[in-house]
Amino acid sequence: MPFAPVLASEVSSWHGDTDVVIVGFGGAGACAAIAASDAGARVTIIEAASASGGSTALSSAEIYLGGGTAIQKAVGYDDSIDDVYGYLMDSNGPQADPGKVRAYAEGGAAHLDWLMSLGVPFKPTELKERAMMALTDDCLLYTGSEKAWPYSARYKPAPRGHNLEVEGDNGGPLLTRILLEQVEKRDVDVHYDTRALNLIVDQHGPQQQVVGLTVRQDMEERAFRARKGVVLCAGGFIMNETMVQAYCPQFLDNKTPIGNPNDTGSGIQMGLSVGGRAINMHEGFLSLPFYPPATLTYGIFVNGQGQRFVNEDAYHGRIGSFLVDQTFPVYLVLNVDDYGNYETESWLQAPVAATGETLDELVSELKLPPGQLELTLARYNQDVDAEADSLFHKDAAWLKPIEAPYVALDCTPGAGAFFPCFTLGGLDTTVEGAVHSVAGDNIPGLYAAGRTACGVPRRGDGYASGSSVGDATFSGRVAGNAVANREVV
Amino acid sequence: MPFAPVLASEVSSWHGDTDVVIVGFGGAGACAAIAASDAGARVTIIEAASASGGSTALSSAEIYLGGGTAIQKAVGYDDSIDDVYGYLMDSNGPQADPGKVRAYAEGGAAHLDWLMSLGVPFKPTELKERAMMALTDDCLLYTGSEKAWPYSARYKPAPRGHNLEVEGDNGGPLLTRILLEQVEKRDVDVHYDTRALNLIVDQHGPQQQVVGLTVRQDMEERAFRARKGVVLCAGGFIMNETMVQAYCPQFLDNKTPIGNPNDTGSGIQMGLSVGGRAINMHEGFLSLPFYPPATLTYGIFVNGQGQRFVNEDAYHGRIGSFLVDQTFPVYLVLNVDDYGNYETESWLQAPVAATGETLDELVSELKLPPGQLELTLARYNQDVDAEADSLFHKDAAWLKPIEAPYVALDCTPGAGAFFPCFTLGGLDTTVEGAVHSVAGDNIPGLYAAGRTACGVPRRGDGYASGSSVGDATFSGRVAGNAVANREVV
Repeated sequence: MPFAPVLASEVSSWHGDTDVVIVGFGGAGACAAIAASDAGARVTIIEAASASGGSTALSSAEIYLGGGTAIQKAVGYDDSIDDVYGYLMDSNGPQADPGKVRAYAEGGAAHLDWLMSLGVPFKPTELKERAMMALTDDCLLYTGSEKAWPYSARYKPAPRGHNLEVEGDNGGPLLTRILLEQVEKRDVDVHYDTRALNLIVDQHGPQQQVVGLTVRQDMEERAFRARKGVVLCAGGFIMNETMVQAYCPQFLDNKTPIGNPNDTGSGIQMGLSVGGRAINMHEGFLSLPFYPPATLTYGIFVNGQGQRFVNEDAYHGRIGSFLVDQTFPVYLVLNVDDYGNYETESWLQAPVAATGETLDELVSELKLPPGQLELTLARYNQDVDAEADSLFHKDAAWLKPIEAPYVALDCTPGAGAFFPCFTLGGLDTTVEGAVHSVAGDNIPGLYAAGRTACGVPRRGDGYASGSSVGDATFSGRVAGNAVANREVV
Repeated sequence: MPFAPVLASEVSSWHGDTDVVIVGFGGAGACAAIAASDAGARVTIIEAASASGGSTALSSAEIYLGGGTAIQKAVGYDDSIDDVYGYLMDSNGPQADPGKVRAYAEGGAAHLDWLMSLGVPFKPTELKERAMMALTDDCLLYTGSEKAWPYSARYKPAPRGHNLEVEGDNGGPLLTRILLEQVEKRDVDVHYDTRALNLIVDQHGPQQQVVGLTVRQDMEERAFRARKGVVLCAGGFIMNETMVQAYCPQFLDNKTPIGNPNDTGSGIQMGLSVGGRAINMHEGFLSLPFYPPATLTYGIFVNGQGQRFVNEDAYHGRIGSFLVDQTFPVYLVLNVDDYGNYETESWLQAPVAATGETLDELVSELKLPPGQLELTLARYNQDVDAEADSLFHKDAAWLKPIEAPYVALDCTPGAGAFFPCFTLGGLDTTVEGAVHSVAGDNIPGLYAAGRTACGVPRRGDGYASGSSVGDATFSGRVAGNAVANREVV
């Protein structure tokens, strides 16, 4: 039966016998393997694809860390653990996990040191532009809404996105290569083209312990014994339409799932099959990547009521998450001057809904309540003159009058704009990565990390780029260390 | 271990041996018992409280049904199955279950007939006022957002709340008494003051079947064999703070859980313990019960931007659900004239934030961006003059100029207003009530109904009063019939 646990007593022969079996060789799995190996465990990695990297390899691999990392200090940022903790608790809303956020905030500097000790290169420089990712080899950039209201008023902002020292959007491949080299150095047993099937347990029922994993490999079913435990690092479930329909169906229509094809939730399903608890399964990253060009930030988003609904200097994921809850249509209205290199630079793909040499001409082509955009723009321009956005507190640096000639981009879902999404729900784990059972205790021998677990990032409207790769590498390392040190009775 | 399944082979003696064990004697459990008994099964009900009724007894027990019920026809409403289906699919959003909604829409008239055949009294009259519940013995009333935008334009509205023929807010107790009498007539074995503990299975693991239930009764643990199956009708989980924190933490701060004290999610936990799948666990009913007096509907809600955000003629649950996602503060601004009997009639408990003989006086006491409420009111009053709310399409019947003297009620969560809530997530079941396992098949011998299952109502912003009692009685009846007819191999 898919994902149902198998009894060890029914395994006729063991293809492998090791301490730790890791399911998935993405960012989380690689870091779990390195940490478990360094803690003295024998490690086997099971990977469905033909190469390592998972969704980390496809990402920009910015790594969201703060609280005074070596790079933050070298560049001159005095970022405090309390500001990281406060920002992450607040932006992840009521579902934030205080224990995980505390460990992540307090351990941020040490985690970057650890990555650097593995040879991951970061250059002590900052990218100052508002960018979706760094295309230079500069390191630090703002990748969340730290400088945007309401957070800017509550926590001292600092750039926490750590971009690898590599030109272009090539952080993911570089991080993948370095982690692969580190795994290979450690004599970890890696099986590619091998699909994890079922957890193996010593017995069924409430006393069960996880003691291994069955896989499909070379057209055979094979069993691997895991004497200390199994770590599920198999990614999220955005590529599994059945699971998305069941748990977060809002991501089905007019959204683009991002990740690798094996983000099918198999790790989560295996955890559930032995009584694990999945939480936050409705949430995900959902973005409207409307910058670059950064000049689009001078515009305003208006909804079907012709009203603004967000400060446009917030992170693109926050804006995407707010946008989908509006009355449609939603337009981004701006000066033609600020449209800039939209057609060549932008990822947004939102079509032009209207242009206008006059406001009347613009609104005549938009589906908005008569007169409302005029009121909204008048109010906005008045605030620009006063250098204070009295409604949404967009930073003064992004305030500029919106005047003729105008352009409006149609950002309504389904009209063409790009809405990338991935899941943020997963197995509920301890800070150390042990999987909670439904009854609240832990399942002996079972760990999870990365997007298979529900980690630090928990809300689309509070997401920051780099928090998934940051959390995946962090939680993988923590879980790898924990499983290697597990006392098996 | 709490909720963990127990092996039948480990049961030393059986206290009871029956066909169907029903956990919980609220609306769902009672209807499951009646239906199962009428289908020829021997039935045992396990109830933690000292009396029947559960949260149904505490409710107004309006029953949301349409598609041409006997009462709708008698009053003169021509409600179609397609309009019920369309409205429920749309208002329950992307997570709506087409199969369940279809069965509910098509079976609405028959379900009311069934309730009437049990002696549940409905009078062929209509309550015309906008009310939170009927305090008269009239039957039909609008209990959702059928007459409100955006639904009114898409589906022909009809009143679908069926209030029992009883004076005062006494539908719940009357329905409970009638269902109790019907259960007692059927020689069902009822155990009060008995807490369900664990499901009993024939074996652990993927091949397990549910064959009974352990309970705590008279200071002993006892086992009941269920030869056809167990139906979990134990309510939702709003009274379980640990589960609310894990799944829907947004309901913890400044919200009031409503339901009976045994809405602790024990049925859901038991279902999860044998591999059931829980879905929609983040969702719930969340209301701002701001009418009566209905005249408050003439006011406008404004958020921290001084902007309206909803058509105020929508159902109070829709307004509550929208409200909590706004920037705070949130005020209800209205004419002092329409304040009416607020202090004696209202459930809202929102304090007066400000009053004003002039608009200047009013706004001077409110925390809003300077000038914005003035713009919002001017726009609104202009729309009132034109008899069309161009922004939110509030029905013309509720359009009236807002003029001095003014009053503003502070509806910000935490300021004093009443935000009742309960959960809408639960076990994923088939249309017949069988519990889906994580792998997608059904768990033999296990059924769920009412708020232990995830039924027809799935969104706070699309909720209609009476849809939970409607769904509980409907799904209980369906599951009771299904379990009684189960072929046991």
